[in-house]
Amino acid sequence: MSDVSTQIQLVNRPHGWPTQDDFRTVDVELDQLAPGQVRVANEFISVDPYMRGRMIDTRSYIPPFALGATMTGGAVGRVVTSTVDALPVGSLVLHQFGWRDIAQGEASDFRLLPEPPEGMASSVYLGMLGMTGLTAYVGLLTVAAMQPGDTVFVSGAAGAVGTAVGQIARRKGASRVIGSAGSAEKVALLTERYGFDAAFNYKDGPVRTQLRDAAPDGIDVYFDNVGGDHLEAALDSFNDGGRATLCGAIAQYNNTSRTPGPTNMTNIVTRGLTLTGFTVGNYLDQTAEFNREMGGWLTDGSVVHDETVVDGVENAVDAFLGLMRGVNRGKMVVRTQR
Amino acid sequence: MSDVSTQIQLVNRPHGWPTQDDFRTVDVELDQLAPGQVRVANEFISVDPYMRGRMIDTRSYIPPFALGATMTGGAVGRVVTSTVDALPVGSLVLHQFGWRDIAQGEASDFRLLPEPPEGMASSVYLGMLGMTGLTAYVGLLTVAAMQPGDTVFVSGAAGAVGTAVGQIARRKGASRVIGSAGSAEKVALLTERYGFDAAFNYKDGPVRTQLRDAAPDGIDVYFDNVGGDHLEAALDSFNDGGRATLCGAIAQYNNTSRTPGPTNMTNIVTRGLTLTGFTVGNYLDQTAEFNREMGGWLTDGSVVHDETVVDGVENAVDAFLGLMRGVNRGKMVVRTQR
Repeated sequence: MSDVSTQIQLVNRPHGWPTQDDFRTVDVELDQLAPGQVRVANEFISVDPYMRGRMIDTRSYIPPFALGATMTGGAVGRVVTSTVDALPVGSLVLHQFGWRDIAQGEASDFRLLPEPPEGMASSVYLGMLGMTGLTAYVGLLTVAAMQPGDTVFVSGAAGAVGTAVGQIARRKGASRVIGSAGSAEKVALLTERYGFDAAFNYKDGPVRTQLRDAAPDGIDVYFDNVGGDHLEAALDSFNDGGRATLCGAIAQYNNTSRTPGPTNMTNIVTRGLTLTGFTVGNYLDQTAEFNREMGGWLTDGSVVHDETVVDGVENAVDAFLGLMRGVNRGKMVVRTQR
Repeated sequence: MSDVSTQIQLVNRPHGWPTQDDFRTVDVELDQLAPGQVRVANEFISVDPYMRGRMIDTRSYIPPFALGATMTGGAVGRVVTSTVDALPVGSLVLHQFGWRDIAQGEASDFRLLPEPPEGMASSVYLGMLGMTGLTAYVGLLTVAAMQPGDTVFVSGAAGAVGTAVGQIARRKGASRVIGSAGSAEKVALLTERYGFDAAFNYKDGPVRTQLRDAAPDGIDVYFDNVGGDHLEAALDSFNDGGRATLCGAIAQYNNTSRTPGPTNMTNIVTRGLTLTGFTVGNYLDQTAEFNREMGGWLTDGSVVHDETVVDGVENAVDAFLGLMRGVNRGKMVVRTQR
């Protein structure tokens, strides 16, 4: 096993759309393992929309990425050298060392994982069985307090979180699940593969009218991955007492000017609506329950995990930029085996 | 006692600022009392910001006012003729028959009130001890879940709901209470009379910077009576996990075009904020607890009830328009004794 780790570092804070020039690839010579440490060969690393927010230096629930340092984030790999009995060679582990092919550090920074469900790669722990799935689960069921019989609208519905939200809503008794996405192919997948009752392409016309047509009796829950005109459309279609979970605003991440909010904010008052932003990190106490339920659904096939795989840690920036443009279906991951 | 009731009716749905021409004053000959009915001479009628919303025909938690019909709303008066033992002549009652000097109807439409606390007029039941106070109480303590130690920001703070919110926050252990208002005189009252720690005039400069100066350590709770730039400023100053109660948007009620929302909606996601609109009607189960607490505070003088009184039912429209312009301090009421 190589003693060199290839890593991707952030070197500029992007203004507008990130470019390759905002990153550099470096080869880092690894030290000998110290007692208590392990070395892990990554299998997959995660690229996620929230990372765009961390590339700038703004106040948030997590600090910004450091300039000149390797991009951090979720990754799964196998222990290749170990000084620790609890993590023998071959152990599958999850960690936050991010965009590198080999990670090395204290054993306490790596969490031992069970082998993935039959027929699935370890990347499922970055997607449906990981933070992505947990985000959908707590955002829908706890933050938005979805009840059986609710009509649920999900934007960015063909993405990692969106496909999870739609399928969880179905499992939990939503009466109608509606999704939006940015291509005809994705829209078809929503109804044909992920169990949505209705779906539309937001590029085909105003979101407001498309949502009204898809939900003539209004919506009760909105899971927002997009922001902008999607949130405005949801505010327009909400029934009294409706709840929105604001999970992301990918439509605005690369804007260089301030984006005006919805023009119909007064509906929040007149219809008694609740809008809640949330950070999955505040809901980690639900992890065990989530693992049990989602593990069952994946095993019995009632929830499907899809992903878009980009090969090679040196292509992590491409994968991230593709994610920003919405080229992925389901979870976007980078496969890092050499 | 006269057999004629003077009443104010809505005859046009205002576009922009309402005018006198949108209303008419009529004298209605009253029928003989039928068995089960009472006749009430009003002492005070309430004019409230929410009434502007009901003047247009839009979807809301309450239906619009009917054209050509008398304006409904809260009022207090005394029974002058009765067919019902439970409401003898002289009883103080609360009802929703609104903008008229004499109200008449089924006894079940009138609620018997105790005499007001020592030294207060019956109008307190339209203000601090009525829907206004209850709105402040549940909006602050239940909807925004204010905790002892929180920093609380209130917009429209010198109005009926605002003066209640600020004083309740103080009683309930807020560490810092900040208010905005639209005149130097009101700003002075906020700190000198209503116990706010800091206050500013929103006309003196950007709300965003004034709030940041008044709350250098950020805010935890925002009680929004105004909307617009005040909500944007609050989103800017919120600490992680902040909660906003959206009670009204008086800045926008008379706009004739759609008003863009805050440009910093993404803070809802990055700081894990919650924005909740609410309707006091959904929280009437808290009335008894509210009456007990607020009654105690008013009696021991730790909460003051202030009001602006306009004389004569024929001046109800003037009172309402004054309310829209913010000429009132505390609760705006119309005194209707002849």
